Amino acid sequence: MSTQVGSGDPTRSRILFAAMDLFGRKGYQSTSIADILLAAGAHSGSLYHFFPTKQDLLLAVLEQYRDGIEPMLLAPAWKDVADPIERVFALLGAYRRALELTDCAYGCPIGSLALEIHEPDPPVRELLAVNFLGWVKHVRACLEADRGRLPRGVDTESLATFILTAMEGGVMQARTHRSLAAFDTSVGVLRDYVTRLETDARRERP
Amino acid sequence: MSTQVGSGDPTRSRILFAAMDLFGRKGYQSTSIADILLAAGAHSGSLYHFFPTKQDLLLAVLEQYRDGIEPMLLAPAWKDVADPIERVFALLGAYRRALELTDCAYGCPIGSLALEIHEPDPPVRELLAVNFLGWVKHVRACLEADRGRLPRGVDTESLATFILTAMEGGVMQARTHRSLAAFDTSVGVLRDYVTRLETDARRERP
Repeated sequence: MSTQVGSGDPTRSRILFAAMDLFGRKGYQSTSIADILLAAGAHSGSLYHFFPTKQDLLLAVLEQYRDGIEPMLLAPAWKDVADPIERVFALLGAYRRALELTDCAYGCPIGSLALEIHEPDPPVRELLAVNFLGWVKHVRACLEADRGRLPRGVDTESLATFILTAMEGGVMQARTHRSLAAFDTSVGVLRDYVTRLETDARRERP
Repeated sequence: MSTQVGSGDPTRSRILFAAMDLFGRKGYQSTSIADILLAAGAHSGSLYHFFPTKQDLLLAVLEQYRDGIEPMLLAPAWKDVADPIERVFALLGAYRRALELTDCAYGCPIGSLALEIHEPDPPVRELLAVNFLGWVKHVRACLEADRGRLPRGVDTESLATFILTAMEGGVMQARTHRSLAAFDTSVGVLRDYVTRLETDARRERP
C-alpha cells in the first residue's frame, strides 16, 4: 500500500488527508466516518473500498506520517539551517509555529494518538512507535554530525530520545495552558542543557 | 463541593473513584456512563443526582487529583526521602512504578486527558492546567529547598516545568513502546543535566 503524497488514487488521497487533519484536530475517537466523508467530499463506498475499517484509515495516516517526516517536517524546518545542533532547535521551532498558528490548540498528532488510544491494537501501537523512532533517528543524526561538540560520555541515542521527550512534554503543557510559555520554557531549559554539554566538551578537549 | 478522600456520601465516592480509574485506564471518551455504573455498583439515578453530566464527573475527578496530590502522590513517594533533589527523582520513580505495575500501559491521567480532549470546555482546561501547576509548584519547592546546589542563573520555576515535561514525555514514549527504556532514558538524561548543574554550581562557589 503506497502512502506517498500525490501518488495513488486521488479520492484515496483526499480521504487520507481529511482523516489526517481531523484525527489531528479532533482526535481519533471523536472523528466519525461521516466527518471524514464530508471533509473529503467522498462517498462511503469509496472510503470502504480503500479503508475497510476506521483502523485501516488510522494505519494509513500513521504510515503517511512515517513516510512524510522528511518532505513534510524536516525539509521545511531545515531549509535554511546548516548547523546540525541548530537543526535540532529548528525542528522544535516547527512545533512552536504549529502551536502559534493554532492559538496553542495544536498537539503533536503522534503524541496525541499515543495517549488517546488506550490499549491500541498491536499494528497501531507499532506504527506509533515507528514514528517516534524515526523522529529520534533523525535528531540523533544531527547530534552525530558534530559529535565532538558533546562530551564523550553522552549517548546520542539517549539525548535524541530526551529531545523528543522535551518536545512532547512542552507541546502538552502549551496546549493545556493555551500559551506558548511552557513550550518556550522547556526548549529554553533544553538549550541550557545543550550549552552546558558543549561547554563541558570543550573542557574535555582543551 | 468537597472532593476529599473519604468525605461526603459513600455512593458519590464510589462513583467518583470508579470514574477516576476508568478515565485513567480507558480514556474519557471511551468510558461510558454504563461502565461507571457497573464499576461503582451504583444506579443511574444516584450518578445523575451527584453528577448531572459526564463533564461534571470529569471536573470532580480533576478536583480529586488536584486535592489528592499530597496524600495520594507526594506523601507515599517522599516517605523515606529527605534530600530535596532526591525527592524530585523519587516522584519520577512513582511514575516508573505505575508503568511497571501496568506493563507500561499507564499514562499520567492529567497528561492523557490533556491530549485526549480536544477543545475542552474552559473549566476542564483550567482544572487540567491547575493540576500541572500544582505538580510544578511542589517540584519547584524541592529545588528551592536546596537552592545553593544549582547555579545562580537557573530559574527554579522553569526547571520544575521542564521536569514535568521530562516525566510526561517519558511516560508517553514508555507507553507507546510498552517498555520502561524510554522512561528510564529520559530520567537518566535529566539526572545527567541536574548533576552538571550541581557541578557548575560548585564551580561558581568554590
